[in-house]
Amino acid sequence: MNAEFINPFLSSLQNVISTMAGVELKPGKPGLKRDEVARGDVSGLIGMIGQKTKGSFSLSLEASLALEIMQRMLGERPAGITDEVTDMVGEITNMVTGGAKNLLSDKGFDFDMATPAVVSGPAHTITHKAKGAKLIVPFESDFGKAYLEICFDK
Amino acid sequence: MNAEFINPFLSSLQNVISTMAGVELKPGKPGLKRDEVARGDVSGLIGMIGQKTKGSFSLSLEASLALEIMQRMLGERPAGITDEVTDMVGEITNMVTGGAKNLLSDKGFDFDMATPAVVSGPAHTITHKAKGAKLIVPFESDFGKAYLEICFDK
Repeated sequence: MNAEFINPFLSSLQNVISTMAGVELKPGKPGLKRDEVARGDVSGLIGMIGQKTKGSFSLSLEASLALEIMQRMLGERPAGITDEVTDMVGEITNMVTGGAKNLLSDKGFDFDMATPAVVSGPAHTITHKAKGAKLIVPFESDFGKAYLEICFDK
Repeated sequence: MNAEFINPFLSSLQNVISTMAGVELKPGKPGLKRDEVARGDVSGLIGMIGQKTKGSFSLSLEASLALEIMQRMLGERPAGITDEVTDMVGEITNMVTGGAKNLLSDKGFDFDMATPAVVSGPAHTITHKAKGAKLIVPFESDFGKAYLEICFDK
């Protein structure tokens, strides 16, 4: 997996969170998944299928960050990871993947997206089981951490 | 979502678990997802894309059931939800979805599968965020519960 393929996901994530909630996510050092574990409290997952490859994308958020984003978008802070929060995380996952899809389509790489699923539960981990390299990028913000993971079969 | 579409997933799951591990899963009453929450300790998720629709599938297992399946397949019981267990759950998710895909293809309904992702963490929940009905089917076994969930956009 090369940077040309990964960067659209990073820039799409930063753009979505900044535009929707005014929160800046600072990317850390990307790593291969074996080295680092993403432990989020709420995660969005989406499957991707292209003509030559398939894969999956996930975005894991610490609860503090997810709740801050909700508060900035809606003006109210939910007491915990409610249905409204999982709806928002599903929508963000769709928007980030859709944004990356558009950027990659401009470069001649097309894929279709499945529908997102959202996982909630304290400090869960997600392991992508495609055959190719699994890339994880940690993000820092003033309100908590986020982890983006991408995995493709080739 | 009609029974003709759901049943291939149910029979494929029962067939895979029975063949691989000799464990019988007894299906309970299917429900719409709003009524019931699947709390599994390890779950496999996979995205599906067809020509006219897209969706997602998940299989959540209680830890006791996942570990029993591992012991029966490998002769050793892991101490917890190790990488080997998540690999197995990813593989089972692939096999169940692949089996259902074949059965549905015979009926003229074709879809492609993304790569699976596996979630681990005690009592996490999964919410499928497609627009259509979300179906959940609980299964009982002698070693713990399993939950199958399917969601399609239409």
